[in-house]
Amino acid sequence: MKIIIAGAGAMGSRFGLMLNQAKNDVILIDGWQEHVDEINKNGLRADFNGEEVIAKIPAYQQDKLSEVDFTADLVILFTKAMQLDAMLKSLQPMLSENTKVLCLLNGIGHEDTIKKYVPFENILLGNTMWTAGMEGPGRVKLFGTGSLDLQNLGEGQEEIAKEVVAVLSKADLHANFSTDIISSIYKKACVNGTMNGLCTLLNSNMADLGATSFADEMVKEIVLEFEAIANYEKVPFDREAILTQIKGCYNPETIGLHHPSMYQDLRINHRLTEIDYINGAIVRKGKEYGIATPYCSFLTQLIHTKEELLGVK
Amino acid sequence: MKIIIAGAGAMGSRFGLMLNQAKNDVILIDGWQEHVDEINKNGLRADFNGEEVIAKIPAYQQDKLSEVDFTADLVILFTKAMQLDAMLKSLQPMLSENTKVLCLLNGIGHEDTIKKYVPFENILLGNTMWTAGMEGPGRVKLFGTGSLDLQNLGEGQEEIAKEVVAVLSKADLHANFSTDIISSIYKKACVNGTMNGLCTLLNSNMADLGATSFADEMVKEIVLEFEAIANYEKVPFDREAILTQIKGCYNPETIGLHHPSMYQDLRINHRLTEIDYINGAIVRKGKEYGIATPYCSFLTQLIHTKEELLGVK
Repeated sequence: MKIIIAGAGAMGSRFGLMLNQAKNDVILIDGWQEHVDEINKNGLRADFNGEEVIAKIPAYQQDKLSEVDFTADLVILFTKAMQLDAMLKSLQPMLSENTKVLCLLNGIGHEDTIKKYVPFENILLGNTMWTAGMEGPGRVKLFGTGSLDLQNLGEGQEEIAKEVVAVLSKADLHANFSTDIISSIYKKACVNGTMNGLCTLLNSNMADLGATSFADEMVKEIVLEFEAIANYEKVPFDREAILTQIKGCYNPETIGLHHPSMYQDLRINHRLTEIDYINGAIVRKGKEYGIATPYCSFLTQLIHTKEELLGVK
Repeated sequence: MKIIIAGAGAMGSRFGLMLNQAKNDVILIDGWQEHVDEINKNGLRADFNGEEVIAKIPAYQQDKLSEVDFTADLVILFTKAMQLDAMLKSLQPMLSENTKVLCLLNGIGHEDTIKKYVPFENILLGNTMWTAGMEGPGRVKLFGTGSLDLQNLGEGQEEIAKEVVAVLSKADLHANFSTDIISSIYKKACVNGTMNGLCTLLNSNMADLGATSFADEMVKEIVLEFEAIANYEKVPFDREAILTQIKGCYNPETIGLHHPSMYQDLRINHRLTEIDYINGAIVRKGKEYGIATPYCSFLTQLIHTKEELLGVK
């Protein structure tokens, strides 16, 4: 299968490498020139569960695609949320009317952006539990195992989704066909919509935050706003299961001592956060539906203010 | 006049010193033993607009009042908000049925605490624009000028308030009799309820906060909650004047480069904040009146969480 990995950061590189190893015709597209150059010069290098792997996969800078002759059967979207629109614009010449587009970005509501560029019946949404780390230009660290769920967005397009599941599973990516992907996406967004913003704002890891007296109250208020939006959209939402999963993040013996990805983006790497696509998406939907979302609104404003105070652009 | 300064920090020391200089019979009461000892040993020492002043004023540790023979005509309350209740309890033996009690604490709703210990008709509320700085045990820095407004809480008690105004004015404290002290207190609480919490949480001074894109939006949401409570209580509330005063705090040529007092309490001196008596008071009143106050609620929770994360008790 001809596959474009659109956004070849840590996670994109994992998917690209594993799909390449399974004999698919893969290309990587990314905005980071140095990373692209490194991959083309020395291959995509990975510490893959302790084994050194080098994969020869063509890589292209996102703004220099005009002479690339490649029409994809499948595009897997792995950009940062705020880069999605520009990426889809760049990809236009490489899409046919049959190209499937699988979105694996964090956050909610990306389908609204994708459907501006891709026929609705070709869009697949997914939710992945894989992890990956970037070690430098051209080099990633891929440890542990994971899985992903995905589903067709268009009615009656289950066969397309199952075809993509088969391709990913053949590459050992452990894909599953889901019948409630939006629910899964909301669940994950609730974890991100609480742990990411609060830890980033309060300069805390998840275990320390969870040990404070007010963590549960704040988490609950935020989750109730996600729930109100999900209810309006008739998306099944299991509040207790979601709160239990969030509280699981506090455990110092598992992931509690980690700082969430937004913390790393803003406080370590001085990059803009994805808050607009997590809590900010709830605020936008709330305005559209006439539902109050003050906790998500205040948290979004506070994170943006922190970005500005830190001079991140 | 026999006057107790209850809470002899920087501001209490200023009032004590100036009232002492005007020949009142003043004593200081404070919880900080070292400060009390220093004052009794070497006097209350002040850098008073550049002049070195030493005032011999008796000082007492708040928990050791049982043998002090002093019945006050006037008590001026200058504790931190969370110390108010304990201070009033300690003062009981030194109050007569005629003792007036003037509250000059930051924050709102202190009258609910005071009226548990003092007849309602003896309570005066005030709002001061004086400043003062603590330099160490027994030593303060008193620069610039100021004023204060005060008013009787009990109906028909204007004469009492005006009598206290006269005593304070004779000591050059520039007191004015007010007819809308609760409005002034709300106005000041709005400044504190925005600048204090936001700067403390975001680790910013007021000018930098004011220069961000979302400051005005956050400030407005918070002020609207204060306004809703004030409206319910039929307290006049001039939103535009209050927002203008808050925006005045952003000015780097005046006070913008300063960090508000809560920032200094928590981030410099590692002390608990007064958030429960500013935004937290709005939350309590909102619950009582059935008015939603999510911004004040979230801000109060976030500041308490930050206190706990910093290990401040």
